[in-house]
Amino acid sequence: MTSADSDTGLLAPGWTASPAAAETGDAAFLRALLDAEAALTRAQAGLSLVPAEAAQAVTEAADPGRFDIASLAERARGGGNPVIPLVADLTRAAGEDHGPYVHRGATSQDIVDSALMLVAHRALGPALTDLDRCQRALAGLAAEHRDTPMPGRTLTQHAVPTTFGLKAAGWRSLVLDARDRVTAVRNSLPAQLGGAAGTLAAFTAYGADDATALPAAYAAELGLRAPLLPWHTLRTPVADLAGALAFTAGALGKLAADVLTLSRTEIAEVADGGAGGSSAMPHKANPVRATLIAAAARRAPLLAATLYGSLAAEDERPAGAWHAEWEPLRDLLRLVGGAARDAAELTGTLRVFPDRMREHLGLTHGLIVSERLSAELTPVLGRARAKELLTRLSRRAHEEGRELGELLAAEDELKDLDLSAAGDPARCTGSAGVLTDRALERP
Amino acid sequence: MTSADSDTGLLAPGWTASPAAAETGDAAFLRALLDAEAALTRAQAGLSLVPAEAAQAVTEAADPGRFDIASLAERARGGGNPVIPLVADLTRAAGEDHGPYVHRGATSQDIVDSALMLVAHRALGPALTDLDRCQRALAGLAAEHRDTPMPGRTLTQHAVPTTFGLKAAGWRSLVLDARDRVTAVRNSLPAQLGGAAGTLAAFTAYGADDATALPAAYAAELGLRAPLLPWHTLRTPVADLAGALAFTAGALGKLAADVLTLSRTEIAEVADGGAGGSSAMPHKANPVRATLIAAAARRAPLLAATLYGSLAAEDERPAGAWHAEWEPLRDLLRLVGGAARDAAELTGTLRVFPDRMREHLGLTHGLIVSERLSAELTPVLGRARAKELLTRLSRRAHEEGRELGELLAAEDELKDLDLSAAGDPARCTGSAGVLTDRALERP
Amino acid sequence: MTSADSDTGLLAPGWTASPAAAETGDAAFLRALLDAEAALTRAQAGLSLVPAEAAQAVTEAADPGRFDIASLAERARGGGNPVIPLVADLTRAAGEDHGPYVHRGATSQDIVDSALMLVAHRALGPALTDLDRCQRALAGLAAEHRDTPMPGRTLTQHAVPTTFGLKAAGWRSLVLDARDRVTAVRNSLPAQLGGAAGTLAAFTAYGADDATALPAAYAAELGLRAPLLPWHTLRTPVADLAGALAFTAGALGKLAADVLTLSRTEIAEVADGGAGGSSAMPHKANPVRATLIAAAARRAPLLAATLYGSLAAEDERPAGAWHAEWEPLRDLLRLVGGAARDAAELTGTLRVFPDRMREHLGLTHGLIVSERLSAELTPVLGRARAKELLTRLSRRAHEEGRELGELLAAEDELKDLDLSAAGDPARCTGSAGVLTDRALERP
Amino acid sequence: MTSADSDTGLLAPGWTASPAAAETGDAAFLRALLDAEAALTRAQAGLSLVPAEAAQAVTEAADPGRFDIASLAERARGGGNPVIPLVADLTRAAGEDHGPYVHRGATSQDIVDSALMLVAHRALGPALTDLDRCQRALAGLAAEHRDTPMPGRTLTQHAVPTTFGLKAAGWRSLVLDARDRVTAVRNSLPAQLGGAAGTLAAFTAYGADDATALPAAYAAELGLRAPLLPWHTLRTPVADLAGALAFTAGALGKLAADVLTLSRTEIAEVADGGAGGSSAMPHKANPVRATLIAAAARRAPLLAATLYGSLAAEDERPAGAWHAEWEPLRDLLRLVGGAARDAAELTGTLRVFPDRMREHLGLTHGLIVSERLSAELTPVLGRARAKELLTRLSRRAHEEGRELGELLAAEDELKDLDLSAAGDPARCTGSAGVLTDRALERP
Repeated sequence: MTSADSDTGLLAPGWTASPAAAETGDAAFLRALLDAEAALTRAQAGLSLVPAEAAQAVTEAADPGRFDIASLAERARGGGNPVIPLVADLTRAAGEDHGPYVHRGATSQDIVDSALMLVAHRALGPALTDLDRCQRALAGLAAEHRDTPMPGRTLTQHAVPTTFGLKAAGWRSLVLDARDRVTAVRNSLPAQLGGAAGTLAAFTAYGADDATALPAAYAAELGLRAPLLPWHTLRTPVADLAGALAFTAGALGKLAADVLTLSRTEIAEVADGGAGGSSAMPHKANPVRATLIAAAARRAPLLAATLYGSLAAEDERPAGAWHAEWEPLRDLLRLVGGAARDAAELTGTLRVFPDRMREHLGLTHGLIVSERLSAELTPVLGRARAKELLTRLSRRAHEEGRELGELLAAEDELKDLDLSAAGDPARCTGSAGVLTDRALERP
Repeated sequence: MTSADSDTGLLAPGWTASPAAAETGDAAFLRALLDAEAALTRAQAGLSLVPAEAAQAVTEAADPGRFDIASLAERARGGGNPVIPLVADLTRAAGEDHGPYVHRGATSQDIVDSALMLVAHRALGPALTDLDRCQRALAGLAAEHRDTPMPGRTLTQHAVPTTFGLKAAGWRSLVLDARDRVTAVRNSLPAQLGGAAGTLAAFTAYGADDATALPAAYAAELGLRAPLLPWHTLRTPVADLAGALAFTAGALGKLAADVLTLSRTEIAEVADGGAGGSSAMPHKANPVRATLIAAAARRAPLLAATLYGSLAAEDERPAGAWHAEWEPLRDLLRLVGGAARDAAELTGTLRVFPDRMREHLGLTHGLIVSERLSAELTPVLGRARAKELLTRLSRRAHEEGRELGELLAAEDELKDLDLSAAGDPARCTGSAGVLTDRALERP
Repeated sequence: MTSADSDTGLLAPGWTASPAAAETGDAAFLRALLDAEAALTRAQAGLSLVPAEAAQAVTEAADPGRFDIASLAERARGGGNPVIPLVADLTRAAGEDHGPYVHRGATSQDIVDSALMLVAHRALGPALTDLDRCQRALAGLAAEHRDTPMPGRTLTQHAVPTTFGLKAAGWRSLVLDARDRVTAVRNSLPAQLGGAAGTLAAFTAYGADDATALPAAYAAELGLRAPLLPWHTLRTPVADLAGALAFTAGALGKLAADVLTLSRTEIAEVADGGAGGSSAMPHKANPVRATLIAAAARRAPLLAATLYGSLAAEDERPAGAWHAEWEPLRDLLRLVGGAARDAAELTGTLRVFPDRMREHLGLTHGLIVSERLSAELTPVLGRARAKELLTRLSRRAHEEGRELGELLAAEDELKDLDLSAAGDPARCTGSAGVLTDRALERP
Repeated sequence: MTSADSDTGLLAPGWTASPAAAETGDAAFLRALLDAEAALTRAQAGLSLVPAEAAQAVTEAADPGRFDIASLAERARGGGNPVIPLVADLTRAAGEDHGPYVHRGATSQDIVDSALMLVAHRALGPALTDLDRCQRALAGLAAEHRDTPMPGRTLTQHAVPTTFGLKAAGWRSLVLDARDRVTAVRNSLPAQLGGAAGTLAAFTAYGADDATALPAAYAAELGLRAPLLPWHTLRTPVADLAGALAFTAGALGKLAADVLTLSRTEIAEVADGGAGGSSAMPHKANPVRATLIAAAARRAPLLAATLYGSLAAEDERPAGAWHAEWEPLRDLLRLVGGAARDAAELTGTLRVFPDRMREHLGLTHGLIVSERLSAELTPVLGRARAKELLTRLSRRAHEEGRELGELLAAEDELKDLDLSAAGDPARCTGSAGVLTDRALERP
């Protein structure tokens, strides 16, 4: 762990020092590998395939502090995975009597895959906690700003009014979708146990009457689900993780994209409560957390694509597709864990400026309510005439910087019409409030 | 549709002429757009927001045969989507009286998104049928070959024996996983309706007491789910499609990867019953369907990544992220639909050669059962001595081309041991049969 | 071409009706396939391997109008590529005497790959023309606005002043980089000719003294480069196209990203001169061309990734990796061709508003020049005191909405200092002008 | 570096302990950041903008051993990049007098980007050395096996004969293409220097007469190229790295794919001279190095896609696109560096079995030369009769397991024809030898 090429997150402000980082580093992975080896021995002891003392001894020997990660990593090159040297070291650590029971009947992939699932399970716990913090913060913002009008923007332009409450409720809706998907996948993560080609044959050879009882016992030891079949090349669990994690990164990415836009100097409708400094401009407050979430959202789909690509794995263990999963899965767990942390912090401290929002509703001189005015004028003037008039006056409003409402009021044919409600953007938010209420009912 | 730049699948033997192709072409998409416009008018008529005759007239006018796709496509450039010119043409087609009710209160995205969901729903129907054909064929193969031994292969090398039944059961397990994911997503596809910024404001302006009733009515007209919120920039449905489709392509890609390997001239344990010809070598039988499935599996994760990337969509309608979804989603539907068709045909006609499998079990001169022999010898000789002996004799077996069993029998210290069962690969398939049975119980 | 599943760009406003569309559709691809077959016969005739009349007859028979694309597409399923049915039809069309010389000695991949290179060569011609139009427009903008100050923005916040000239020069620099990369790749595109396994054996069998002369003759007929080796599984040309096209999409994507930001209602420093309408809001002007370019930039890296992934192609022709290239390569050519068209139009009509830019320089009440003020104050006050003062007054400027310059002028210790130059953002653009000049020297 | 979440390659047998690992770890990156800061001070001293003693003091202070990576990483969260805390620490380390000259006029991105380029430059040196070792080994194999016949395989099936020499020459050709692309990019890597918004304004403020001289001086200090413009959001260098690295991974991936196929137990035409062991089966020799290269080739296109995606970077520094580059660029450098090492070792020790290749030429009972026989028979029998006869006899050869040549010899009408040459696969390798010679001439 002190070698020159170890990483500790210097290039990764998005996840460094996060709970996900702690659960996904090499040390955490070593711990998971050892947990898997120890659980395997205990599960076999539970089925009387291995002496109880051996299980005890192996469990004790499986102490991460006794293993040298850098050495394991380097020796992993020979066989292409870290379990081969780990078994050698653990066998030695368990002692002459009990060592022979280490890894008995298993294949490297049983241990690596089970460890990956353990790591995923552990890393997703705090991520879910952060998603929950985030959704609660957003629920608060949505409720507080249920009736705070702001410009709705489409293709970068003001369209019609909306509310900040509806926007926050939408963000929350995505966070809940992410939470549901991550929770479902996390609860389904299986242990892996199949032996060299997934037939459990070695366990039978070592005396199991019904070797198919072993995977369930093993899964129980690990707190993972029992698999229906060994899944060495049936990579549903990994693909499901890919999907849920890419979804979560993207869901948080939507929130980040909006915060970045709304934080722009010219817009400034929201601000990160803990915005970061700049090395060159001490007074500049950058939306750093949204930036880091946005960066994670850019990377996650590609990492997920690598994992989806590994579904097409030949044989009983593929030459490359499996190995290509390890780092991208870890990267995804880190990125999503870090992004969830940043999203929780960001939404928990977000500053909202309703006055700025209100002010911006006037930026288009009333054009933002032209859709509504069109609906009001059509019954009076007929569709064609209404459209012609609005188009002409809108152009004038835009060019002369005058209010559309004022121009309309000056039209003879409209002098008996009260357009004040239609012309007030704050009264043109449609069902935004009701939709917000409804969305907040979702637990 | 006769313009020089139209496609009809010349570069796409994987999906051309498939049900998915018919449901995803420009003509199918035009039909879905028109269905969406007509349904919108009917839904509003159902809530008395629009005269019933107008709904009737618009529904009749929405006849795809009356519209010119190439012209719509070209005119779509101005506003960046095909709904703007379509509304113009449909308004004209509906006539002066009813035309004004076309598209009333909606935004282009309401129609494009609803049409995309309709297209997805329609295209996935036949895909699910093909997945079901495929899983039934695989169930038959798994049952028939429950006890057909064959080499288990890991990292390209013979490892220990397995059975073809377990392999087929594994393929089926992935197909069922795909079916479940596709079915769940297909049943959840929502209609889209929110108006310009997702507040339903225009419907209120046009007189709806409670505009939030409209999306449900609209969804019912379309046979889609009612959305909780307008999802213009809450792209869960698209992301869920991405995940399910990438998963399905990968699941079928596993099957294809194995068929390609097992079809190799040197292996020839299976053959595509309808293998394709070559332009240069009339006698060559290529595993074409597996090849085309494999090609789809290579492309799908990247298309899905584009869709996951579009989750991070700014504002109430993003400038680019939304537009980037259309073609990749269609491509995914086509690729997966085509791959499901090919997989159904491939598995329905797959030829299996148990004799070749049996013959290959002998290729390593017994090394394929060395794991099992090790388990037998260890209690007799002790672990260290057993390992040393096996390593030495295995090397001799490999180098001299002699049978490992024969070399063991010649060892004095083993002369009382009957290793015939341990030495017979066909009797070393562990729990493969039981696992196959269990997997086949899954409906 | 009239089948229900043909596409004509209804979902693709970004490339429909573009020169790239015309050069990449199924009809264009059919033409290229036929050009390749005809050229092969002529090249063999040139080396006296085939009668000149046969070459003449095949060239005449190779008339796209005589072939049915939909039928070819459907029959392509059997062998997995369109050349097999095409050769059958072309052989028939060439007549009994000359038909046997069709495709002689070649493999399907020779024709498909050569046709793909032809299509790429033809599609990239107009794309390069559009890139050149674009760079010239940008050169004009850069020169015109060499000294137009505007806010430099980093992480969404105003940082220090820059100029619109430097920004336009930067855009142009990327367009030139793209032009150079596309040009280099286009000039290197090779013909493909190797026969069934890339050994040219069939040509020898048919009588060639030195079959290695044939690829060069064939390439000359096609106007492509002669390959050093058959490249059936040495996919450098496809990967190089992938890189150059992904680069170009990204280069134009930078321009589009900036235009989208600068077009925002609140910013409005530039506007698309031909901005598009909305279906719901007739008065809204959307930056449609930048939006479509941005969409292309989102998709291109994933399409390129598919092509880079196909480099790892096994054997003398891979089962899937090759087939996975066809549609993504076409998609990339279309997206980039369409984006180049849109970029040429966008930059040719871009409206720039220097007054808005100037106005925005004042938005931060002088904080935008705090870096410069710090440099001025440091020699006078010492670094620590200068920093302390600026930090304090900047906070006041921000909170009280007062000008930083005014607050500084009120400080006793600075009363003799003339900070007017340092406080004027327009005079703080550093070397922007010189850098712009230098960048414009690049031809 | 001893924190719980540091990585040292436990999940990365493909690159751990490689030269690329040593040049890309956090420690190497810290060193590059410090090199960049020190060079900046020296470059300014060279232009008399900073006292020479300050440059000396900063250079001395910039000793990686004095900095705490984990602390820097954690403090990087605040501003979103590691330079902000690094500048604080380096300023302190340089002492009160010289500290103020640290980072003067620069922005964080100047340092991060320059450091990334330094890291890339350093990591690609050994990678090029390994690519050169690899191409030399392949040249040796190609020359040695110029005339070693083997089956050419297309779509997994034997097609026509080829030679192992041509195959090795093809692999080498890709490695040379990779070398050329990596070399070109490595030689073009620029330093980054622009200040807060790329105008070099701060350097002018600090007294530079012509600040545009500084980037060149800075680049010279770093051994990098001088940039034409600051490239904070003109990401050509990063995109070019992405392309060259994805290409290299794919080029080596082709070699790996072939080695994996040819190493299969049933094929065994080549073997990795240092093949790796298995944890469960001590006697199994896995093609580990090809497996790890194949894994890298699967991941690289996706990492490159992330980098291509970052081209579309808004403003003068983007909020996310830039941050998303750091880890993927490092991952690419590691994967490619590791793969080059493995490829050099693999090709340097590859065992080739010509006898197996020769034996396999007979597997199809002569069908592998049916294309050649067709060319021989056509002049004698006419095309139609020749084809009919060959099709019929080929089917018999396949079904009865008899030799096609023998069946042909038994045909009355052919009794005067000597087909021995045409029927000998080893004499049907066409121009393979000449092509190999020609390919080997490429330096």
